[in-house]
Amino acid sequence: MSTSELQHLIQVLAKLPGLGPRSGRRTALHLLQHREMVLEPLLKALTDVSQKIVDCSVCGNLDTQNPCTLCGNEKRDSMTLCVVETVADLWALERISGYSGQYHVLGGTLSALEGIGPEDLRITPLLNRCQTQNVTEVILALNATVEGQTTAHYLLERLRSISISKITSLARGVPIGGELDYLDEGTLTMALLSRRNL
Amino acid sequence: MSTSELQHLIQVLAKLPGLGPRSGRRTALHLLQHREMVLEPLLKALTDVSQKIVDCSVCGNLDTQNPCTLCGNEKRDSMTLCVVETVADLWALERISGYSGQYHVLGGTLSALEGIGPEDLRITPLLNRCQTQNVTEVILALNATVEGQTTAHYLLERLRSISISKITSLARGVPIGGELDYLDEGTLTMALLSRRNL
Repeated sequence: MSTSELQHLIQVLAKLPGLGPRSGRRTALHLLQHREMVLEPLLKALTDVSQKIVDCSVCGNLDTQNPCTLCGNEKRDSMTLCVVETVADLWALERISGYSGQYHVLGGTLSALEGIGPEDLRITPLLNRCQTQNVTEVILALNATVEGQTTAHYLLERLRSISISKITSLARGVPIGGELDYLDEGTLTMALLSRRNL
Repeated sequence: MSTSELQHLIQVLAKLPGLGPRSGRRTALHLLQHREMVLEPLLKALTDVSQKIVDCSVCGNLDTQNPCTLCGNEKRDSMTLCVVETVADLWALERISGYSGQYHVLGGTLSALEGIGPEDLRITPLLNRCQTQNVTEVILALNATVEGQTTAHYLLERLRSISISKITSLARGVPIGGELDYLDEGTLTMALLSRRNL
């Protein structure tokens, strides 16, 4: 029993990732029961973001400026590019604050099933950028999934064809806190093959 | 690595029920990656709801009109009141469409721990309404929790003091699909005590 405006809000909320009809209803009620504290701040935050945040035309990051803060930061090494699938991955790498090069967001992975080909990802801009910025190292920081690795393999070929001297990928191995007994065989094999001298 | 507007949106999203910092980030990115399809509709739905939805001054329901559609519907029996804790409970009862009386939303339960006393709930309006509407039956449809039952007990006393002839509560028993082996002892005891002739 709810009016069409409310019903519509619930439908929109229910489509957000991780929510469904029940949590959509719960969220809508929570918003209406805390108008001053929750609904208005959310409305303002969404309006701000909707009006101010743009895609960086260089790397694909989200920012209030274009080129984004990272691309515009002259202290960052423009000759090293870290290729990631999504902005979320870029944020994850920025949180460790151990990388001072630039990024390139692909916007997804190749997927025959979903009909996503090379032209649907920001691959041509990546190749152009490698040439205009005289990039010396490309780090392929794609997810360790089938799609991520297929895409990495494809990128490797394309990058080699334009003679990028150094193409790397993230290390594979036992994650911190990982117990060998619970690790999958693929990870364990990679960890053994890439063993280090102590 | 995100700008202050985006950071702020993530913080607001992370405080919604069922979300946290990680799902807040995920939702913010989802919104920005689907501006036309998700962000703008959500913004519009929230604006609509924020501007149009009001609390019904009679029963406490949420609607675009005051009194709400349910209170204004003359086909509904105004001499039967169903008392619920929240608007979500009212919606749940309306979904079964087996009740044609009116509702009264308390807005919560009594709670000594959280410092919620009778004056914080819509109890005085309930008593006034019972008298002006000549209510003949009050159904206490509160949750079967300690707080719900404490509140029901308190309401029972108050309603008796103004001589409401019939005060009822929802039946207790085995839920549909319930297996006796997995039911708690309280439910089973109530189900046995309230057994019906077949």
